[in-house]
Amino acid sequence: MNRGTNLPAIGGYNRSVVLDAIRRESAGLSRTEIAGRTGLSPQTVTNVSRRLLEAGLIRESGTVISGPGKPRTMLQLESRGRFAVGVHIDPAVLTFVLLDLVGTVVAHARELTPSASEPDEVVALMARSIDGLVVASGVDRELLLGVGIASPGPVDIGPGLVLDPPMMPLWRHVPLRRALSEATGLPVLLEKDVTACAVAETWLSEGGAGRRTDFAFVYYGTGYGTGLVLGGDVLRGASANAGDSGHVMVDDHGHRCTCGRIGCVGELITPHALVREAVDGGVLVAGDVSDDALAEAARRGDDVDMRRIDEAFGALVGKADAGDAGALAVLHGAGRHLARALVTIVNLLDLDEIVFGGPFWAPLSRHVLEVLPAAVRGDPALIPKHPVRIVESSIGIDVAAVGAACLVLDQTFSPRPSALLIRA
Amino acid sequence: MNRGTNLPAIGGYNRSVVLDAIRRESAGLSRTEIAGRTGLSPQTVTNVSRRLLEAGLIRESGTVISGPGKPRTMLQLESRGRFAVGVHIDPAVLTFVLLDLVGTVVAHARELTPSASEPDEVVALMARSIDGLVVASGVDRELLLGVGIASPGPVDIGPGLVLDPPMMPLWRHVPLRRALSEATGLPVLLEKDVTACAVAETWLSEGGAGRRTDFAFVYYGTGYGTGLVLGGDVLRGASANAGDSGHVMVDDHGHRCTCGRIGCVGELITPHALVREAVDGGVLVAGDVSDDALAEAARRGDDVDMRRIDEAFGALVGKADAGDAGALAVLHGAGRHLARALVTIVNLLDLDEIVFGGPFWAPLSRHVLEVLPAAVRGDPALIPKHPVRIVESSIGIDVAAVGAACLVLDQTFSPRPSALLIRA
Repeated sequence: MNRGTNLPAIGGYNRSVVLDAIRRESAGLSRTEIAGRTGLSPQTVTNVSRRLLEAGLIRESGTVISGPGKPRTMLQLESRGRFAVGVHIDPAVLTFVLLDLVGTVVAHARELTPSASEPDEVVALMARSIDGLVVASGVDRELLLGVGIASPGPVDIGPGLVLDPPMMPLWRHVPLRRALSEATGLPVLLEKDVTACAVAETWLSEGGAGRRTDFAFVYYGTGYGTGLVLGGDVLRGASANAGDSGHVMVDDHGHRCTCGRIGCVGELITPHALVREAVDGGVLVAGDVSDDALAEAARRGDDVDMRRIDEAFGALVGKADAGDAGALAVLHGAGRHLARALVTIVNLLDLDEIVFGGPFWAPLSRHVLEVLPAAVRGDPALIPKHPVRIVESSIGIDVAAVGAACLVLDQTFSPRPSALLIRA
Repeated sequence: MNRGTNLPAIGGYNRSVVLDAIRRESAGLSRTEIAGRTGLSPQTVTNVSRRLLEAGLIRESGTVISGPGKPRTMLQLESRGRFAVGVHIDPAVLTFVLLDLVGTVVAHARELTPSASEPDEVVALMARSIDGLVVASGVDRELLLGVGIASPGPVDIGPGLVLDPPMMPLWRHVPLRRALSEATGLPVLLEKDVTACAVAETWLSEGGAGRRTDFAFVYYGTGYGTGLVLGGDVLRGASANAGDSGHVMVDDHGHRCTCGRIGCVGELITPHALVREAVDGGVLVAGDVSDDALAEAARRGDDVDMRRIDEAFGALVGKADAGDAGALAVLHGAGRHLARALVTIVNLLDLDEIVFGGPFWAPLSRHVLEVLPAAVRGDPALIPKHPVRIVESSIGIDVAAVGAACLVLDQTFSPRPSALLIRA
């Protein structure tokens, strides 16, 4: 049922709008500029600004003289006015970040994901790591808004459960959100990793005309997934598990996937798939990496030791960097496979931008991007007439952890017209 | 830039909310019930209702006694208070409907799409057909809200251009929206056919808990496409061309598509593809249909005569209805191919419902649905844990034309929180 709106609902919304306008202009805005950009009356802007100043969310940052009137006081985000913690759970590594209000990573930590631990121990480890992060940074605990967790899917975000992610055999229906909230005393949000990445790109991308509204975030980590932003909103789906694109078929020969299909992109382009292809094809051989890594790379199944895969992946990319034709062929093949999968998604959703990132992306990006843009644009199956921009995330290797922290910032501060509706 | 809100913006929004509440309850609602459902104050509901009554959009429909208070006057939608025209352009047939406010088709017409005409002649034909529809129905022209057009993609909805749809070789950058608006004197909206279908399902599906929020509308007509509704909103995409899913690969052998892939679902399941498969496999033979239809069915290329394909399609379905094993195998194969394509889309968008419809759907639905639900649910690649409902559209063969008319109703009457924002 659609709900109406009334005056009390307006106040909170306009507060978010003013904060958002200030946030998007790093040089700050005057009250007059805020009124112009938001359409709010000068009096409303003055009232809202006063409350934001009192809350320590913005500050006055000097005056600017423009025109004959009196100098204008600039309002800027108080970057250290609040903080959020982000945690990214990867089968291989746990990443922790402490983010300030402008999205700067104030502190950072990393732990190997204990491969044989029970989830209880992982929660205790997380709570200790978060505590250490906050203490080391000297940030006042009172200024912490909460903790966001980016988890491999599938997840159940209502109760905050991690269900049964691949490559994490001990994680079955883990009530992580509650457990971590109890362990830290902080509010905790949980989302799928690719969703967190999409939120990070939306929250931290530049303001104004450059703001991204219809894009896929290609997450390239231990696994492969696609965060989606459509019409400016992050797509979560019916159960907040949107973004699974591993079984998009891109080839008509090759290994059969566990699902029965041939040529699933997720079977062809993950770090494990690439090093296996390299070993099978004689591109990675004894001497390039440890015998253990070579054996692990060649193994099938999703319970591989990601540290050894990581070693083999580094060697493969190193060979490509040195111009090895076989290694380059493997990475270029990945680029062409990925291009076909992306054309399928671009056609379905009419996207105009693809953003690449994730922990394993940076090493191979140069080689993949030698072939991928031309393969997307030249695909006879590509339907949209407009250009499809292909860019790399500026957020870097920790994008999922940063995105996890952005979940908290986004929930607290993003203006949503739906917030205008009278609550039931 | 996010915009603020103020009192003037609220009025129009609350009017839409009240109208929408009344619309969703065919038995009508009392003012008290409206206040309860929308959260609006009784005084606001009284004021808004008076304006809606004056505008002829609602009517008082008797009183209901409930409890000790005075009898309550019920408010109902004035179904004949306004009308909208819908036009569906298919390469084979043009469909026209006149829809009242509750979504009842008041009048209906159909013309074969002139296969060799210039677009100018088609526009003139459309204008004449719309005029005939309105005159025959006896509806006051003053009550017409406008015309919606559902067109094959790609389209450019800003200027209202039909770009270069497959199977319509004479339609290249046709400014249909303006041309039809000039020819009829009515406002005209244009959207892609699958988008119009999705709007129809959203607008006409039942209210309350049964309201659909995350689904794909599988449009099965001359072509195949997928309208998408995500979080209750119809997905249009960056250029309003979302929904192209013909190049989703579902098989690793068979004919090579024009795009270079093998096993594109759009090459495997369209009416033309099915009758071609039936002729190639000796399922449809001389005597089943005219020689012309047999020859056309066997031909490759996208410039086939759809009337002959239609004849062959009818014969194929007739054989399946009569239990012919070969014909059943062709239609069951289509069901399995479609299932794989849908699993890809369900995984990406985390959908919980698939709705089937379109002009060629009804004849083969029984046979396709013998295999499709089990093929979706049993696919090892299916990621979401929740059930995926598989239903048929209740709107029938004219869903795209009805959806085109719903575009007009939806734009005029749907409450959108974004309407609350102060305009730039």
